[in-house]
Amino acid sequence: MVDYEVKKHTKINRIPIRGHYDEETVHSIIDSSLICHLGFVQNDRPFVIPCIHGREGRTLYLHGAKASRLMDESGSGKEICVTFTHVDGIVLARSLFHSSMNYRSVVAFGKGRALNTDEEKMHALDIVSEQLCQGRWEGARTPSEKELRATSVVAVDIDFASAKIRTGGANDDEEDLAGPWWAGVLPVETKILTPIPSDDLKINPNPPQHVQDRVGDVL
Amino acid sequence: MVDYEVKKHTKINRIPIRGHYDEETVHSIIDSSLICHLGFVQNDRPFVIPCIHGREGRTLYLHGAKASRLMDESGSGKEICVTFTHVDGIVLARSLFHSSMNYRSVVAFGKGRALNTDEEKMHALDIVSEQLCQGRWEGARTPSEKELRATSVVAVDIDFASAKIRTGGANDDEEDLAGPWWAGVLPVETKILTPIPSDDLKINPNPPQHVQDRVGDVL
Repeated sequence: MVDYEVKKHTKINRIPIRGHYDEETVHSIIDSSLICHLGFVQNDRPFVIPCIHGREGRTLYLHGAKASRLMDESGSGKEICVTFTHVDGIVLARSLFHSSMNYRSVVAFGKGRALNTDEEKMHALDIVSEQLCQGRWEGARTPSEKELRATSVVAVDIDFASAKIRTGGANDDEEDLAGPWWAGVLPVETKILTPIPSDDLKINPNPPQHVQDRVGDVL
Repeated sequence: MVDYEVKKHTKINRIPIRGHYDEETVHSIIDSSLICHLGFVQNDRPFVIPCIHGREGRTLYLHGAKASRLMDESGSGKEICVTFTHVDGIVLARSLFHSSMNYRSVVAFGKGRALNTDEEKMHALDIVSEQLCQGRWEGARTPSEKELRATSVVAVDIDFASAKIRTGGANDDEEDLAGPWWAGVLPVETKILTPIPSDDLKINPNPPQHVQDRVGDVL
């Protein structure tokens, strides 16, 4: 098991048992996320913008439109932060103090660089596309040269990352256990549902296998 | 309909028709989110941290543990960014270039201030708790003085905010419509499921009404 190096700014200080630094855990949370939240600084102001991503090894590819502030800023070589979060449940303890959430999250840091060549961009878009829906790269029309030129892709080599995970039920204080308050977990599930074909399809509207394979996935 | 003032850093430039600045739209996205992503700058480095929140008018309350970096930094009066995102679908266009996501997001900016008095904290925690599960404040043990002292709450008066929403199907180029590629949407749903009672309950394990009322909510 290979770990990300732990730094002061990625160390889980609060309840350290919830912290994970191994690639397997970190990458599985990244890979099962449909989106990430990209943080960057512009004129001393923090911005947090949702975007889509793909991962290859320790490299993240972030995709956005050419014109956007997000791509300009995040591709400029400055340090950026990319965060991935799944909510798995609302933990209702007897006491509000011990009430919590079940979640899986990753906070990753690295420097962004804009990809320039068509080859680099095609490769990165392939990774991003496959992460959202495996098989889609083959199942759709790939980008033209003109489209590639209108597309920005930023690569981020992750320097440091940590995961934080909470699972399980409520952990109440001993003296509250016999109290009159209910305790338990309200599970939260994010799921991919039955596809809705476009109404202007000229071909068989039944979704192809690679689309059907995504149905029912719980993230 | 009251709008948030539009500033350069909150204006939706890319596909402006997807931008919304009215309180109703912005607040409904905030209120239906279980978590937010808080962005702040520390030593020139951007941090993006998931946290829970409540909203009252244009004020957000963010809750965290006393010791955490998040609360120290975000309560210090510096400008912070708070982002809320729901993913509603993966839009599979015939062309990868027009493939997209359906989503509802809000990006809000304001200055954070740590709440100091027990009264302020109790009020804010009430708002946060009710946002996660309405009725829970009455249904659980409220915080003791000692617990309040160990709890940090940051209030953020939102100065500027904008929402961005994409709905609907794939928008392909005319010349791709007759192509051999399937197009449509894979809906994504985040839902609250049947509660799991703690196994150490000394009372009736059936969830009380306020917990049952949350079941089936689609966020």
